[in-house]
Amino acid sequence: MNDAISHDRLANAIRALAMDAVQQANSGHPGMPMGMADIATVLWRRHLRHNPADPRWPNRDRFVLSNGHGSMLQYALLHLCGYALTLDDLKQFRQLGSRTPGHPEYGYTPGVELTTGPLGQGLANAVGMALAARLLAAEFNRDGFALFDHRTYVFLGDGCLMEGISHEACSLAGTLGLDRLIAFYDDNGISIDGHVEGWFTDDTPRRFEAYGWHVLREVDGHDPAAIDAAIRAAQGAGRPTLICCRTVIGRGAPTKQGTHDSHGAPLGAAEVAAARAALGWPHAPFEIPADVRAAWDARAHGAARQAEWEVLFARYREAHPSLAAELERRLSGALPEDFAAYAERELQAVNARAESIASRKASQNAIQAFAPRLPELLGGSADLAGSNLTLWREAVGVSHDRPGNYVYYGVREFGMAAIINGIALYGGFRPFGGTFLMFSEYARNALRMAALMKIAPIFVFTHDSIGLGEDGPTHQPVEQTATLRMIPNMDVWRPADSAETLVAWQAALEHRQTPTSLILSRQNLPYQPKSAAQLADIRRGGYVLVAEAGALQAVLIATGSEVELAVRAQAALAEQGIHVRVVSLPSSFAFDRQPREYRTAVLPAGTPRVAIEAGVSDYWRKYVGLEGAVIGIDTFGESAPAAALFEHFGFTVAHVCAAVRECLDRG
Amino acid sequence: MNDAISHDRLANAIRALAMDAVQQANSGHPGMPMGMADIATVLWRRHLRHNPADPRWPNRDRFVLSNGHGSMLQYALLHLCGYALTLDDLKQFRQLGSRTPGHPEYGYTPGVELTTGPLGQGLANAVGMALAARLLAAEFNRDGFALFDHRTYVFLGDGCLMEGISHEACSLAGTLGLDRLIAFYDDNGISIDGHVEGWFTDDTPRRFEAYGWHVLREVDGHDPAAIDAAIRAAQGAGRPTLICCRTVIGRGAPTKQGTHDSHGAPLGAAEVAAARAALGWPHAPFEIPADVRAAWDARAHGAARQAEWEVLFARYREAHPSLAAELERRLSGALPEDFAAYAERELQAVNARAESIASRKASQNAIQAFAPRLPELLGGSADLAGSNLTLWREAVGVSHDRPGNYVYYGVREFGMAAIINGIALYGGFRPFGGTFLMFSEYARNALRMAALMKIAPIFVFTHDSIGLGEDGPTHQPVEQTATLRMIPNMDVWRPADSAETLVAWQAALEHRQTPTSLILSRQNLPYQPKSAAQLADIRRGGYVLVAEAGALQAVLIATGSEVELAVRAQAALAEQGIHVRVVSLPSSFAFDRQPREYRTAVLPAGTPRVAIEAGVSDYWRKYVGLEGAVIGIDTFGESAPAAALFEHFGFTVAHVCAAVRECLDRG
Repeated sequence: MNDAISHDRLANAIRALAMDAVQQANSGHPGMPMGMADIATVLWRRHLRHNPADPRWPNRDRFVLSNGHGSMLQYALLHLCGYALTLDDLKQFRQLGSRTPGHPEYGYTPGVELTTGPLGQGLANAVGMALAARLLAAEFNRDGFALFDHRTYVFLGDGCLMEGISHEACSLAGTLGLDRLIAFYDDNGISIDGHVEGWFTDDTPRRFEAYGWHVLREVDGHDPAAIDAAIRAAQGAGRPTLICCRTVIGRGAPTKQGTHDSHGAPLGAAEVAAARAALGWPHAPFEIPADVRAAWDARAHGAARQAEWEVLFARYREAHPSLAAELERRLSGALPEDFAAYAERELQAVNARAESIASRKASQNAIQAFAPRLPELLGGSADLAGSNLTLWREAVGVSHDRPGNYVYYGVREFGMAAIINGIALYGGFRPFGGTFLMFSEYARNALRMAALMKIAPIFVFTHDSIGLGEDGPTHQPVEQTATLRMIPNMDVWRPADSAETLVAWQAALEHRQTPTSLILSRQNLPYQPKSAAQLADIRRGGYVLVAEAGALQAVLIATGSEVELAVRAQAALAEQGIHVRVVSLPSSFAFDRQPREYRTAVLPAGTPRVAIEAGVSDYWRKYVGLEGAVIGIDTFGESAPAAALFEHFGFTVAHVCAAVRECLDRG
Repeated sequence: MNDAISHDRLANAIRALAMDAVQQANSGHPGMPMGMADIATVLWRRHLRHNPADPRWPNRDRFVLSNGHGSMLQYALLHLCGYALTLDDLKQFRQLGSRTPGHPEYGYTPGVELTTGPLGQGLANAVGMALAARLLAAEFNRDGFALFDHRTYVFLGDGCLMEGISHEACSLAGTLGLDRLIAFYDDNGISIDGHVEGWFTDDTPRRFEAYGWHVLREVDGHDPAAIDAAIRAAQGAGRPTLICCRTVIGRGAPTKQGTHDSHGAPLGAAEVAAARAALGWPHAPFEIPADVRAAWDARAHGAARQAEWEVLFARYREAHPSLAAELERRLSGALPEDFAAYAERELQAVNARAESIASRKASQNAIQAFAPRLPELLGGSADLAGSNLTLWREAVGVSHDRPGNYVYYGVREFGMAAIINGIALYGGFRPFGGTFLMFSEYARNALRMAALMKIAPIFVFTHDSIGLGEDGPTHQPVEQTATLRMIPNMDVWRPADSAETLVAWQAALEHRQTPTSLILSRQNLPYQPKSAAQLADIRRGGYVLVAEAGALQAVLIATGSEVELAVRAQAALAEQGIHVRVVSLPSSFAFDRQPREYRTAVLPAGTPRVAIEAGVSDYWRKYVGLEGAVIGIDTFGESAPAAALFEHFGFTVAHVCAAVRECLDRG
């Protein structure tokens, strides 16, 4: 790299691009890029290991912009370093279909590792990446073959630190001693409401020391030497490090720097012009002088670094051919070739065993069946391992000095989900984690972020209804299953027995761009005998479980623990001469994607439908329409034994039969 | 109080009741009550200011069991102290309809101040209570009249401290210097997965010192003298205090104490018997010896304390009659008598102004109209005051040394919502707080808890759709409005213009047992002219905004920013000779509670319906059925200017007209 050129000019190139792009879009956040430009320049030019030509190089450093509203910082860096991101792309900042959306969006921009914006989550994702990096290194590195020895760098602001998830993720990072995680705190003293003293007075260094982090205090975020020294200190710290950088938000904007006026709105033409003058940057908007461009260009250096690594990996492949092949499979995200066949055999075995067990237990059986063949499974739970039944025999807990395949996340649902997202983004693992379905709400936005990023982690949510009994309404999901189904691209399975649970796990594992929520019972569920065709149809998300014994009069649709009730009601109605079928609908996500003919065959048009699910009824109108009936729960639960609650809330054969008869009378 | 009786016997009465009730229910959590029995005994017998005969005495100390799974601790205390909670109630622990549900439930049990169980939230609720207590004292106390000088005590465990919300709430409590907040950390080293060292190694005292709390370390939680000294130190600390108590979970259970086996399951008959022997508690299950009962009885002392306060308040009423009357009104929760009339005049004025403004701006206008007449309004925002438009002219920010009526919550959505719940529970205030609708997800479970507790805080959620534009899919709600509507007892308003916004605020303020979510636009919305009858019907949640010009063929249903589109489509269809009406449906909560005749008059049976909302479509099937159409968004948004997005996602007159014609062709 050419260090003859001044640091300031290099950093000012970022500042200029950021303020120009925000000005052109007439929308955006110039303050953060201008404030963190110096830190970014030192990190990206002197330390970051990356190859602009191959943003997927496995041993690249990961860079996470947790304060994602400063997206123009990252776009400027990617453009200047030589990624496939042109000046025209920058000029399209925040426009429909551009590669430069308002926040960094995974899959839109070469070099963007993840979607950020919801504050605090990028930091937690980075913890997941650093954890994945350590575990993958432990599994695949060999003497002389440090295939994975990169770092994870994360930028964050006051907002990230105020968010609770920063506590959850950083506390666990400290416990696990994730030494290759280096975070830069943009301590500019400003948040949207103004100077933070009125609402944020933490002694942040002391807080992070309490987590066991290495903390570098009061680093001048505009002094390249100080920044460089801090990074070097962090790299050798042997613990996760927080570098606290004093910065001036909007640095370079003469009248707006240091104020929240520079945070989230264009500076305005006059201020941009004044900033150009103040910064000594006489160039036109979007113009980068050739010498600055050359000094930023990271392509040759990056290609050389990656080439070295490719040589190393070629030697590794010779020395450890099966390990290398396995690593390549793992990084590709592909399941083992025999996975589908194995899953099919397992399904047959489950069907033959026909056990009446809780679906959480069936889930554990599925994990036990799959995990020994899928070393990429990285399990965990938010302090409910024994309740979620997420452990399997060969599971080994991860600790600060021991790799493993199971993470004890502690009581940190949101942190867990975001860390899991980071692991999924990193690659090489298929992470899953459990908590009670109710506390999916603590993690809700991380679940959405998984769906938005099109990644495929698996969330194990047990204790799925009033069926959990005595713990009462704070723990009894009512609206949670329905609302999870409303997250676009989230596959939600609520299986009725052990076979459906196994298929749910299989579907979850086969997804590559869709996260899955498994909704599982605490209580035992009877096994529902199935033909070979029914077994095969489970994966369609909905199928006829019990056919009508005469001319079809109505359809009962149920999921999970209520399927049993539907089956009993079907029999009772048959005795009354009313012929209904039972449709088990464990995944509306899968079912809705079936061909129309299949869906119509299962749910014939014009036949009255009654849905049964121990949750809010409104969701089911999409299947039963205005004329059908729903047996659901539109209030909160109560504390009592499960059997008493199902009776209390009307989940009885008599009630179902009455609802069917009423539909028929109306029809 | 009779201190001749040994502390141990008093504490063991709690232990015995807890293990007996759990054993009888065959379900529950004996470990925490047995571990915290000594702390509870010292606090409740020597310090807690309360009157069992009047659990609503305004100047009582508040007691919050943030680790709510230990509910039997509180039930035992309430019973022993003489609250209206009998031994028979305790024997009904966790049974349907009992006053002793699995977790403390607000409204079920005399003396239970709030519902707890979802970890960390009780602690945040307590911060809200302590804040409300300080602000009410500042407003109503006068020289010689310390009407409010009580404390808020909170019990919490490792789980609460791992949860992110503990960071948010305690950080803000430190900034605000809530000196009358005293928290007891049950540091027993155990969580559900076992010994916490594997996942929780925070130096918690150091962490809380970083928040500016006073911290008492390493207090022996089984030594009454040490506990008493710690409480006295905390009472004089001038800052919020965390008392870190080393305890043994399940203390007294010979083989299970100190292990997670005592956490969440009955001890078993043998262990209970052995615990009786070990504790020297020879009494039968649920039997409390008379001397122990007498020593615990807090009725006489409590009644005397309250009587003193009532005398004080009587003198206060003489000295400050109007203040006293206002305080009584505030504590009763009643709105001023002229509120409805004033709101009606304001509605007429809004209608006359007919402004085309963003609904977030209309919301600010409503706040401005109401706040000067409702001093109980206590506003705030999670660092988005200028975006949510939650400030009004007379708002004064609360700080550590200044009371006020506006809380700068910082970037702490979950903490804010739970603190607001605490304020609402405390009484005397009507709290509201704002954030972007997307980040309602960070606060989701606190919103649910408000609905579950039947309290009436107001949540202001702005930037409600793709209409926010360039910030992109991380910030663009799609499923959020629909999923909020699915929370039982949550009133969700998505108003279409300034009049609907005013009515939404009025409805929210008139609710006493229902929380409200106001869903507001960033962008301007045209005013929809209304007749007097239409104005009056807004509060019904849905009404005919534009009537059909000929024989009705279809109904367009829309909310918020999409009402304008429906109105334009109606006109376009009329030109094509198709006669439809436009129904504005700002609150399905209110509409669904209207008499059937009204609902049918608005939405005639058998007429095709097309719903329009920039969110997930499934929700609308409850209104349009299987035959109707929904113009919604079932994917994530994109980053672009709002107008481009509405066009891109099909929110166009042409698309609406096509959907209507298609419905008519099918019908």
